[in-house]
Amino acid sequence: MTATNRQIRLARRPVGEVRAEDWAHGAEPVPAAGPGQFVGRTRYVSLDPAMRGWLDDRPSYLPPVGLGEVMRAGSVVEVVESDHPKFRVGDHVVGSFGVQEYVVSDGKGALKVDPALAPLSTYLGALGMPGMTAYFGLLDVGALKEGETVVVSGAAGAVGSLVGQIARIKGCRVVGIAGGPEKCALLTGELGFDAAIDYHSEDLRKALRDHAPDGIDVYFDNVGGDVLDAALTRLAMHARVVLCGAISQYNNETAVQGPSNYLSLLVRRARMEGFVVFDYAPRYPEAARELAGWIADGRIKVKEHVVEGTVDDFPTVLGMLFRGENTGKLVLRLS
Amino acid sequence: MTATNRQIRLARRPVGEVRAEDWAHGAEPVPAAGPGQFVGRTRYVSLDPAMRGWLDDRPSYLPPVGLGEVMRAGSVVEVVESDHPKFRVGDHVVGSFGVQEYVVSDGKGALKVDPALAPLSTYLGALGMPGMTAYFGLLDVGALKEGETVVVSGAAGAVGSLVGQIARIKGCRVVGIAGGPEKCALLTGELGFDAAIDYHSEDLRKALRDHAPDGIDVYFDNVGGDVLDAALTRLAMHARVVLCGAISQYNNETAVQGPSNYLSLLVRRARMEGFVVFDYAPRYPEAARELAGWIADGRIKVKEHVVEGTVDDFPTVLGMLFRGENTGKLVLRLS
Repeated sequence: MTATNRQIRLARRPVGEVRAEDWAHGAEPVPAAGPGQFVGRTRYVSLDPAMRGWLDDRPSYLPPVGLGEVMRAGSVVEVVESDHPKFRVGDHVVGSFGVQEYVVSDGKGALKVDPALAPLSTYLGALGMPGMTAYFGLLDVGALKEGETVVVSGAAGAVGSLVGQIARIKGCRVVGIAGGPEKCALLTGELGFDAAIDYHSEDLRKALRDHAPDGIDVYFDNVGGDVLDAALTRLAMHARVVLCGAISQYNNETAVQGPSNYLSLLVRRARMEGFVVFDYAPRYPEAARELAGWIADGRIKVKEHVVEGTVDDFPTVLGMLFRGENTGKLVLRLS
Repeated sequence: MTATNRQIRLARRPVGEVRAEDWAHGAEPVPAAGPGQFVGRTRYVSLDPAMRGWLDDRPSYLPPVGLGEVMRAGSVVEVVESDHPKFRVGDHVVGSFGVQEYVVSDGKGALKVDPALAPLSTYLGALGMPGMTAYFGLLDVGALKEGETVVVSGAAGAVGSLVGQIARIKGCRVVGIAGGPEKCALLTGELGFDAAIDYHSEDLRKALRDHAPDGIDVYFDNVGGDVLDAALTRLAMHARVVLCGAISQYNNETAVQGPSNYLSLLVRRARMEGFVVFDYAPRYPEAARELAGWIADGRIKVKEHVVEGTVDDFPTVLGMLFRGENTGKLVLRLS
């Protein structure tokens, strides 16, 4: 009997919030590995805020996911069949393999990972794209200097939780913005942030005045909207605003909310700069080495939110991101 | 008989558009020069979009003009009395002397200028703050490189007309955005821009696609609002958006219109950066030398819009800026 490969495909383009009907659940026979290919069985699927952007039919840093195509996703697979010289049966491999139980790959863009060095899921989080994003966004785009004040939004998320911890390692004062008392307690407790602001219940501008009395040197933005606007009112001279994402705006049915306070960039001689982590691919090994060292030292605590399920749970789990229900990196572990 | 010193003072803070009633017209006796001071008689008063911001009671790069204070303005004065060792009777001096017929100064922030080298008004324009703003904004903040595509808004204004001409000198393709066919004809004619877009009558996004087919490398923004948003849709990779001003927003009674397309900074790995020209004061001589050379060579055409009148005409002339009625640097010449 041939195994089946359950897959999640994009059935229609969502308008606003992603709905169950936007996805098609299907199955195909698992294909065999052709010459120079391997077959991987999916162990962990990554869920990322950026996925929402991939569903829209507009130019971006990656082409949109096509209608009828398997949903794009990073994942960790275990090689179950191989004609590839570099990937052997039993190897674990990370890559953009899509939301499906099995993948056939020629190995392009795939990277072998070592489950003895770190849990497999970590290769989708602190040692994967979120780790690279936090590292290069903060240190390279943000040009962080010791002793500065860093504010990060989405601070309990995959990227934000790392941004804050890296900034602490670099000798900075770190203020995290997150939703809810549990997330805030995590930030100032286990993760060692200097302060946390609960944007659900606090007056954000007042809290930023209190916790960043000398102004914000680096604001790392994962959320956009009102939070970005509040941060712009508190910039220090020559501040850097790092644009990583805008999860508050991704499900908008109307126009994105532009930052009404952008002219503070002028008054404060500040800059706002965007980046796409893929540009740093040649430097991933450098970042991964340093992050792995900090994790091993216990200076970085890895926070992961692992949901057990099947690929058919992907749409439901994705929704958790936009409702802020995850703490740390959200992954789907295929049982 | 003692000469009187007519002055324009801020009577109340404007809400939205500046109105006649926001100003007080008055006169005082001309004071005498105390020890180490000189008295200057105003010849030219500068009118600048930034003035609108100085009238609001909110923190900015300069303190607001106080209620009852003489309106802040750059001007060129002729020394009529002096106890100052460096400024003699008959000298011409540029400084922030305010909207008044006479000023008493201790010489702080004042600079002697030579009417034989350039017309006096030019020291308020191409060789003054607008010149410094264009020069450092484009070359330093914008980090302009030869062969790039530059788009400038407010292109027929004091700063914009210089930005475009400097960019041409640096071997760039230059597209100017201005209001009305006369201004556009000036840009592509006498000022040598490669293209001009009339935002009154053209579809701005389409025109930017046509005239900047490979995208915008440097967008120099003087206006904000919809024009900034349109430019953001056309950024080239690693583009620089130079925030110089936002004249379309200065008279808003509601919130500033934030750039809804700011996430294109992320997709295009671009940055938006503000600056305040005063920070470049130590380098003004370098810029003035280079600009003066280009003017002497005829590579920069100086455009000035000189209105003859008295200090009492200041409020009316200021309104011209916000209605886009000036071409080039707007100055009030005191008859």
